[in-house]
Amino acid sequence: MPTLKLVLEYHGGAFRGWAAQPGLRTVEGTLTDALATVLGSAPSLSVAGRTDTGVHARGRVVSFETDAEPERLARSLNGVLPEDVAVVSAERTADAFDARGEALSRTYCYRVLARGAPSPFERDRALWWPHPLDEAALSRCAAALRGLHDFTAFTPTRTEHVRFERDVANAEWLRNGPVLEFWIEADTFMRHMVRVLVGTMLEVGGGRREVAAFTELLGGAPRASAGPTAEAHGLSLESVRYPDS
Amino acid sequence: MPTLKLVLEYHGGAFRGWAAQPGLRTVEGTLTDALATVLGSAPSLSVAGRTDTGVHARGRVVSFETDAEPERLARSLNGVLPEDVAVVSAERTADAFDARGEALSRTYCYRVLARGAPSPFERDRALWWPHPLDEAALSRCAAALRGLHDFTAFTPTRTEHVRFERDVANAEWLRNGPVLEFWIEADTFMRHMVRVLVGTMLEVGGGRREVAAFTELLGGAPRASAGPTAEAHGLSLESVRYPDS
Repeated sequence: MPTLKLVLEYHGGAFRGWAAQPGLRTVEGTLTDALATVLGSAPSLSVAGRTDTGVHARGRVVSFETDAEPERLARSLNGVLPEDVAVVSAERTADAFDARGEALSRTYCYRVLARGAPSPFERDRALWWPHPLDEAALSRCAAALRGLHDFTAFTPTRTEHVRFERDVANAEWLRNGPVLEFWIEADTFMRHMVRVLVGTMLEVGGGRREVAAFTELLGGAPRASAGPTAEAHGLSLESVRYPDS
Repeated sequence: MPTLKLVLEYHGGAFRGWAAQPGLRTVEGTLTDALATVLGSAPSLSVAGRTDTGVHARGRVVSFETDAEPERLARSLNGVLPEDVAVVSAERTADAFDARGEALSRTYCYRVLARGAPSPFERDRALWWPHPLDEAALSRCAAALRGLHDFTAFTPTRTEHVRFERDVANAEWLRNGPVLEFWIEADTFMRHMVRVLVGTMLEVGGGRREVAAFTELLGGAPRASAGPTAEAHGLSLESVRYPDS
């Protein structure tokens, strides 16, 4: 059976995250229902990247086996999916392509509306931060993230992970009008990792923590030594990189 | 009494347009209520630019007389306004500044999501147009709009206007990722004018009308000869220009 690769966009506001859970509205559950409607039965999915409750995605990648024609399937799915999820693209891949297993890295973006006034257009997709921010300090934190570090401080203590090192290929803060965007690409991410990084960097940006103190956290410091978990609605899974792309 | 200039942002989706109407939720009504709460009584407002039901604004300008301190008033208003309206800036102006009377031009942007797949992030702020579009033809239409023309074809027949000429300072289509943006700046606009222009240009972009036939409409053709009124949710009042800016 040929393998299909879907790229999904979803607004996380009304979902209890990705993973299917009985009785809860999740993106996986919603997609599975749509696939069952269109294909007659739901295939087994492989997915790359995690998103918790309220987190968005602009480039969630899913693979599964089907002999359905890609473009036609995408149109049919978009016809039955609710307005907060969409199939952006669908393509046939090499046999046995596995969205989770073959992913080289994931890229997330966390958006911060950095101005005194709130915005009706950003309230569901950026953290409103009406406090002074030292952008140079934020950039120094991002630069320190690149490379292999122990991110124990940036994930909940009760976590399922056994290995806390992650390899950060790129991390930077970019200004986009009144929005500051934190972009980070790494091999894999742990639960809440981007959100705790942002919560801690905002302390640095506000002068409540030194850049050097932030950098020290990257050596396996305990969770309690880092900052708070920034709200979910600023975060989006932007893309997943594969060997062929 | 000194004059204050407010710049407002609002998401038009849940408003019946700008102008206050008894029993309806409008932006003017909502702002007036907020001003009455904060100042004790509602001042008389002067406003530039019109927005119908469902149309957004990123740069609506309002002026009124008050001796309130601008920054403090903006914060207080943002504290009582609902999430779909915000005061972006507030400043003291020259005495007797009049937001409506002194406006040199208004700039609107109409956003079209030009791809096969819908987007959860654009559904309330761009017209989804999953049909082929000839972008070069759209650009030729926009170029033809510049200058003084008779826009009778682009506003409802039963209209209050007596003069149908408008002076277009600039008009262009810009691509922003999967979104095509139509930007237009003119001295003033008539009811539905931008939306009928877009509805008609989309016919040209889809090959159902020639650019020359579009251009001919600019000489005072009747409304029935132009295309449909594009949906409200793609439109936003972006800015208003004044002599001092």
